[in-house]
Amino acid sequence: MKNILTRNLKALIEAEREDELQHLLAGLHPADVAEVLEAQDPELQARVFSLLPPEKASEVLLELSEFSRDQLVRTLPVERLAEIVGHMDSDDATDIVAELPAEHQLVVLDSIEPDDSAEVRRLLLYDEETAGGIMQLELISGREEETVAEVIERIRIKGDEVEDLNYVFVVDDMNRLRGQVSLRRLLLASPERRLEEIMTPCEFVVGAHEDQEHVAQKFMKYDARSAPVVDEQGYLLGRITVDDVFDVVFEEVDEDFYRMAGTSEEELYSDKVFTISRLRLPWLLTNLTGGLVTGYLVWLFKVTLQDVIALVTFIPAIMALGGSVGIQSSTIVVRSMALGRVGSGQIFQVLFKEFRVALILGLVCGLGGALVARFWHGRASLGLIVGVSMMLAITLSALLGAVSPAVFRRLNIDPALASGPFVTMCNDIVGILLYMGIATAFLKLLV
Amino acid sequence: MKNILTRNLKALIEAEREDELQHLLAGLHPADVAEVLEAQDPELQARVFSLLPPEKASEVLLELSEFSRDQLVRTLPVERLAEIVGHMDSDDATDIVAELPAEHQLVVLDSIEPDDSAEVRRLLLYDEETAGGIMQLELISGREEETVAEVIERIRIKGDEVEDLNYVFVVDDMNRLRGQVSLRRLLLASPERRLEEIMTPCEFVVGAHEDQEHVAQKFMKYDARSAPVVDEQGYLLGRITVDDVFDVVFEEVDEDFYRMAGTSEEELYSDKVFTISRLRLPWLLTNLTGGLVTGYLVWLFKVTLQDVIALVTFIPAIMALGGSVGIQSSTIVVRSMALGRVGSGQIFQVLFKEFRVALILGLVCGLGGALVARFWHGRASLGLIVGVSMMLAITLSALLGAVSPAVFRRLNIDPALASGPFVTMCNDIVGILLYMGIATAFLKLLV
Repeated sequence: MKNILTRNLKALIEAEREDELQHLLAGLHPADVAEVLEAQDPELQARVFSLLPPEKASEVLLELSEFSRDQLVRTLPVERLAEIVGHMDSDDATDIVAELPAEHQLVVLDSIEPDDSAEVRRLLLYDEETAGGIMQLELISGREEETVAEVIERIRIKGDEVEDLNYVFVVDDMNRLRGQVSLRRLLLASPERRLEEIMTPCEFVVGAHEDQEHVAQKFMKYDARSAPVVDEQGYLLGRITVDDVFDVVFEEVDEDFYRMAGTSEEELYSDKVFTISRLRLPWLLTNLTGGLVTGYLVWLFKVTLQDVIALVTFIPAIMALGGSVGIQSSTIVVRSMALGRVGSGQIFQVLFKEFRVALILGLVCGLGGALVARFWHGRASLGLIVGVSMMLAITLSALLGAVSPAVFRRLNIDPALASGPFVTMCNDIVGILLYMGIATAFLKLLV
Repeated sequence: MKNILTRNLKALIEAEREDELQHLLAGLHPADVAEVLEAQDPELQARVFSLLPPEKASEVLLELSEFSRDQLVRTLPVERLAEIVGHMDSDDATDIVAELPAEHQLVVLDSIEPDDSAEVRRLLLYDEETAGGIMQLELISGREEETVAEVIERIRIKGDEVEDLNYVFVVDDMNRLRGQVSLRRLLLASPERRLEEIMTPCEFVVGAHEDQEHVAQKFMKYDARSAPVVDEQGYLLGRITVDDVFDVVFEEVDEDFYRMAGTSEEELYSDKVFTISRLRLPWLLTNLTGGLVTGYLVWLFKVTLQDVIALVTFIPAIMALGGSVGIQSSTIVVRSMALGRVGSGQIFQVLFKEFRVALILGLVCGLGGALVARFWHGRASLGLIVGVSMMLAITLSALLGAVSPAVFRRLNIDPALASGPFVTMCNDIVGILLYMGIATAFLKLLV
C-alpha cells in the first residue's frame, strides 16, 4: 500500500481525489507516511501534509528528517502549527518551538493550552544538550502511601498523555524521588498494597544538567528503557525514554563521521554551493598548509634531489604509509580508551606493544620498498636508503599515532577527532624529514 | 562504594576477607561489578568472579566486554559454567555456548535443564547475523479467546523468565501471530475481557531469517521497544528487544570505524604482535602499491623535474588536497544515500551540485597555491601551473568522490567502506598526472 501510495500520490492530488488519499493515509503508520512524504517535492509534501488530522500530523512531523521538518514547518500557518504542537509530548513540542523564529514562538505558545505552554516554557530553559533538553514532563508518579488501586486509576485518567509507560515513580510528600514500581509489578500486586511496600530503588537517576552524552552512556551501561530526571535537591522533574537516547547517540556518531571527513552535517540541509564551500574550506586549507610545509621540507633538500632525481619516486609511498600507519594505531588506542581498557598507568604497555607491531610493519613495508627501489632503479644503495627510511618512518608514525590520543585527552580535546588530521600531518613531515635526511647523509653512496 | 571496591579489591582478597567482599558485591548492580572487574588483571578477575552466586555471575558475565568475557569463560570449570548459563535468557545463553569449543558445548548443553538446552539447541541453528540469531524464546503469549485474568495469571507464573515485558502476543490455536496487547492495556482492562477484544495489530513483524541490520532499521523507524519474530508461515517463534538491537547497531558502527582505518576489531582482543601486524598489513601494502604507482608516474616526468626541481615542492600539497576533497564529497553522497535523499534519478543533480562546489573550492585553493608558488619561487609561470592544476585536480577529485559511492552501490559493494581507500588512491594518481602533465606542456614557460 505504501508503494502504491508513493507512486500514485501525485495522480491522486491532481485528480482531486483527496477523500481517497485521506483514507489511505489514515491506514498507514506515521513513520510510513513520513517515508512517503520524504520522496516528494516540497510543494506536494505541504499539500499532502495539510490533509492529515492534527494528531496524525504531529506524529508524522516527528518522524520526518530534520531537513524536511524544518522546510515543512516554515510553510505552516501559525494556527495549524499550534494545533499540531498541542498534540505533542512536552519534549517534542519544545524541540519544534525552539526552532521557530522568536515572533512565531510567542504566537504558538499563546495558542496552545496554558498547561502545555507552561511546560514548553519550562523546558526551553534547559540547554539542548543536557538531560533537561531531552527529558519529557509527562510521567506517572504516586506518593509512597498511595495504593496500587489509586495509581491504576491515575493511569486510567492520565495514561493517554504518557507514552511508553514502564515505571511509575514513587515520591514523598515534597515530590522527592523515592523509588519506582514497574508496570508488571503493579499488574501482579493486590490493589490495596501501598507503593512503598512494592517499590524498588531506581537503577540510576539523571540530573537535569547532566550532559546528554553522559546520560546515553548510563542508559547503555544499565540497558535501561527509561530513567527519572531530578534536580539538585532530588525533586522529580521528568523522565527520559530510550528513544530520546537513541537519537542522541546517532547524532553523535553522525557528527563524528562528518568531522572525520572535514565537513559538517549542515551540508545535507543546504543547496547553496557557497555555504557548502565555506563548511569544507577550513579543512582543505589546513591540508594545503600541511602539504606546502611538507613541500618546503622537500625543497630544503633540493641539492640532494638534483643529484639523485630517482629519490622523488618514493615520496608518495612514504607519505601514504606514514598517514595510514598513524591512523591505524590512533584508532586502536582511541577505541581502547573508550572501552576503558587503557588506564593512565597502562599507556607505556600500549606504546611498547605498538612499537613492536610497528617494527614488524616497518620491516615488511621497508623490505618491499627496498626491493622495488633496488630493481627498478638498479641501485642497491637507493634500495637501502628507501628501506631504512620507510622502516624508521613507519615506526615513528605508529608511536606518534599511539601517543597523540592520550596527549589530546590530557588537553581535554576529543581524541577521536583531533588525532586524525593532526597525526596525518605530523607523519607526512616526519616521513619526509627522515627520508630526505637519510638520503642526504648517504648521498656519497648514491652519486 | 564502587571506587572503594576498585581500590581495595586486591587488599580484601589478600587479607582473605571474602565474606566482606561478597557482601559488597551483592550490593552492586551487575553493570557496576563488571566495571570493577574490567579494571583487574585476569587472575584477580577469576578469583572475584568465583565469589559471585550463579545468578549474579550470569548477569555480570553479560555486562563484561567480549574480550574479558571470553577470557573469563575459558577459566571456568564446565559445571560452574553450566550453572551460570542455566540462569540466562535463551538468546544470551546461546551467545555464550556458541563461543565454546565443541566438546565443552556438549557438556554444558547436557548439564543444564532439558528445556533450556532444547531452546539453546534451536537457537544455535540460526545464522548469528539474522533475527533468529538475536531473538529470545522467552515471551508471554495468549490465545485470542483467553481472558485478561488468565493472561495475568500466566505472567504471575512465568513472568520471572521474561525480562522487559511490554507486550503480550496474541496467537490463534495454531500459534500463528494475530496481534498484541500492551501491559498498560492489560492493567486497565476488566479481568473478564477476551484478548481478541482488546488486541491491536503489531506495528511490525520480523522474519526469523531477516538480516539483523534490517531488523535494526525497522526498530529505529518505528521507535519500537520489542517486536515478535515469526517464521514463513506466520507462526510465533520468539521476540527481539531493543537492547539486542542497540548491540547490533553499535557493532556495525564500530566495524565501520575499524575498516575505515584499515584494521579490525580483532586487534583489541589480541596481544600477539604478529596477529595484529597481519590484520594491518593488507591495508598498508595497498597504500605502498598506490604510493609506488604514483611515484612511477612522477618518474615518467623526470625530464621535466630535472629541468624544474621546484615542481617537487607542490607534489605533497596536490596529493593531500585531492584525497581530502574526494573523501568530503563521497562522505556526503554516502550519507545522502543512506538517508534516502538521493534516488537513482537524482544522481546527476547531485553531481552538478558537487561540481559547482568543487569549482569554488578549486578556485580558492588553486589561488592560494598559485600565490605561494609565485612569491616563493619568484616565477609567475610556476604560479599559473600550480594554480591551474590544483583547480583541475580538486574538481576532478570531487566528482570522482561523488560518483564512486553510486558505482559501488551498483556493484553491490558497501559504498561507505569501498569509496574511502579507492577514492584516495585514484585522486593521488589523477592529481599527479594533471600536475606533471600541465607542467610538461608548459615547460617552455618555466625554463
